[in-house]
Amino acid sequence: MDSKWYNLIMKKINIGIIGLGTVGAGLVELIKKNGPEMRRRQGIDLRIIAACDLRAGQGKKVGLPKATVFSRDYRRVLADERVDTVIELIGGLQPAEEIIKRTLASGRNLVTANKKVLAEKARSLLRDAMNASGFFGYRAAITGYFPLIEFLNRSQLQSRVIEGAYGIFNGTCNYILTRMERERCSYRQALTAAQEEGYAELDPYLDVSGMDTAHKTVLLVNLLYGYQMDMKQLYVEGIQKIDYRDISFAAELDYRIKLLAIVRKAGSRCQVRVHPCLVSRRSQLGALDKVMNGLELEDARGQVGGFIGPGAGKFPAAYAVLDDVITMACGNRYSYPKRQAGLTISGINEVESNFYVRFMALDKPGVLAAISSVLAKRHISIASVIQKEEEPGKAVPIVMLTHLARERDMRAALDEIYRLKVIKSPPLMIRVFDELPSLRG
Amino acid sequence: MDSKWYNLIMKKINIGIIGLGTVGAGLVELIKKNGPEMRRRQGIDLRIIAACDLRAGQGKKVGLPKATVFSRDYRRVLADERVDTVIELIGGLQPAEEIIKRTLASGRNLVTANKKVLAEKARSLLRDAMNASGFFGYRAAITGYFPLIEFLNRSQLQSRVIEGAYGIFNGTCNYILTRMERERCSYRQALTAAQEEGYAELDPYLDVSGMDTAHKTVLLVNLLYGYQMDMKQLYVEGIQKIDYRDISFAAELDYRIKLLAIVRKAGSRCQVRVHPCLVSRRSQLGALDKVMNGLELEDARGQVGGFIGPGAGKFPAAYAVLDDVITMACGNRYSYPKRQAGLTISGINEVESNFYVRFMALDKPGVLAAISSVLAKRHISIASVIQKEEEPGKAVPIVMLTHLARERDMRAALDEIYRLKVIKSPPLMIRVFDELPSLRG
Repeated sequence: MDSKWYNLIMKKINIGIIGLGTVGAGLVELIKKNGPEMRRRQGIDLRIIAACDLRAGQGKKVGLPKATVFSRDYRRVLADERVDTVIELIGGLQPAEEIIKRTLASGRNLVTANKKVLAEKARSLLRDAMNASGFFGYRAAITGYFPLIEFLNRSQLQSRVIEGAYGIFNGTCNYILTRMERERCSYRQALTAAQEEGYAELDPYLDVSGMDTAHKTVLLVNLLYGYQMDMKQLYVEGIQKIDYRDISFAAELDYRIKLLAIVRKAGSRCQVRVHPCLVSRRSQLGALDKVMNGLELEDARGQVGGFIGPGAGKFPAAYAVLDDVITMACGNRYSYPKRQAGLTISGINEVESNFYVRFMALDKPGVLAAISSVLAKRHISIASVIQKEEEPGKAVPIVMLTHLARERDMRAALDEIYRLKVIKSPPLMIRVFDELPSLRG
Repeated sequence: MDSKWYNLIMKKINIGIIGLGTVGAGLVELIKKNGPEMRRRQGIDLRIIAACDLRAGQGKKVGLPKATVFSRDYRRVLADERVDTVIELIGGLQPAEEIIKRTLASGRNLVTANKKVLAEKARSLLRDAMNASGFFGYRAAITGYFPLIEFLNRSQLQSRVIEGAYGIFNGTCNYILTRMERERCSYRQALTAAQEEGYAELDPYLDVSGMDTAHKTVLLVNLLYGYQMDMKQLYVEGIQKIDYRDISFAAELDYRIKLLAIVRKAGSRCQVRVHPCLVSRRSQLGALDKVMNGLELEDARGQVGGFIGPGAGKFPAAYAVLDDVITMACGNRYSYPKRQAGLTISGINEVESNFYVRFMALDKPGVLAAISSVLAKRHISIASVIQKEEEPGKAVPIVMLTHLARERDMRAALDEIYRLKVIKSPPLMIRVFDELPSLRG
């Protein structure tokens, strides 16, 4: 069997689409709309041979071409011998993993937008993909809208090492945080609004828990250093505990709260973490609102480059899928970095940050002294304090920004402070994102 | 003579560098530092065969390899038969144009960072380049740090039309404007500071006049639509007239002042202009400080993508040059868009904007009424007004934001208002940048 199923001269691509949800529908629309011009001008002929979706009426609903064979069973798409390129858009682990593995094994081309399966099965799937004879594209799974793969491929050709990557990768979380800030509302209210407006799923867990961002981060680390992380190696914290109060205190300190993915390499040690951060209002990442995503990259010389693009909606991901198909049609493949030898992932406990902490304390003399002395014992020094009176007799918030401290020490201090009698609920801690020197205000 | 001078298998590139200024020095440093690893890992062997600079000691100063033949005459670099790839880094029109033309005609590869010669000689040079058998790279001339060419090449393959492009392309101007804002100082003081810190040339004309931005914009329009503009077709206004007072009024209105390049296509008509703008503080472009550059692109569906990166310094441009060399070494060429038939460039008079205008008027009854009635006569309606008392007896600033108005009408109104006796100096007008819907706050 020929390893290149497509015909390089005619550039005919026979596509099978598995899953006609938002992205699938967008892809069908793009191919129908732009297809004729692509045929005429670029000599690329995209044909949707077969498609499937669990919902029987979905083929009609998305307006599949008449010639397309529609079914409810993905096995029929895989069994169609005319299909040379399988596009997996169902998401989730199974049967996505099976579809990808079978397609790669058969030598056919595979394009997927499924970050979950790629990240959670990274070790086996990415290895399969690298050894496959067919084309493997997953641009839509990582940062659909950015020409990130090209940028990183070329950085590697230049022997240029990216030492820092900082991103907002989840449109749903960013929408919720923007909404809380603007409407001065609770997390719960903002989530409901996001669901009503179609920016959050009915089950928002994957997004708000930070897991979706974590999946993309695992793929990013692979692109950066050829290192296949286990999800277990990654510290992940979602946005569910963020309170409007913290957004408001952060604003007083000239920060906004964003869910960030942070990759920072120093020598052979690399931090990889996903959690909410205080981000300067003046920074690029701090200016990203609603569903916009962004990524900043920093090399060993402190030179920075960045990308922004929409993080939700059907067209960004559909364009990314189309992009992979065209890369393939042009006879190109993505190159993957060689694994950087000896890279190790640091645990979160070793990371140093500035911290934002909020305590809810009884408004009694000596409270501040008690808290400060616990911090001082752990060599954590305080950069600023906000203390506000709220209703008399109730616990009042005490907010502190610390200087650089090690996570391990901070956690130990917070545990100890929580045991103080005057402290009424678990202290809340948010790390402060240390802005890139080149972008620093 | 073989059209590919370089050896595809060994990937040996024999380089001649013309001009060892900031970028040339950065390139020599990158090749010396990253060269050994590029040879080992990528199989790309970059050899600096010859180099020249008018300053006799410059070869030593930048640390040219011992084997490199250094001279003060670019003709000796061109005459060196071993050189297969000429890198032109002298800037300016002559002898840069001659160097580029002779190199392209000889079938050798050419890489240049010279936006001035490419933009001002666009019609002949870009045509020569497209027909040349050698490689032609000018990434460093346009937006060195962004993978823009790849993004646009792929958009074209997808038959996706970019309808809007909005950028901050000049690090010097952005530095000066940021400095004026932070230090509350005059244009003159900020320019002097920029010169002292090496962010502005002793002769800053090319930067502050907007011409440098205009050159990049001409190249951008070429990449977008295959349309080779004449510099004359472009409306260009610099930042020299910006007063700290306007930066401060803009801030009250929640805007910052930035020098923007604006390309906006509707059907076959295209606006192309370079001038200072009021940009929302909340926007991405509005968050770019100091020497950072940025570009936002918008397609027909209103989907937006953007890039940011440093706009000054030796490494961004040197990396861009190296990037071209590697693209070439890998046997790739850039594709250029076919000229979009029937595209015409709209004159500035036809453009509609919201306007910020500042009048210096005697503080007498009826002034506001007189100004407003001239505007009303031209159907220009006022969105907001700021009037401040300054020293008694002196002219006071009256600031207005208008609703959408046509440039022609606005100019006519300002001429008429200037003829009013109470108006003491020419009115100052700054266009308001109409933010992209997807980024709008």
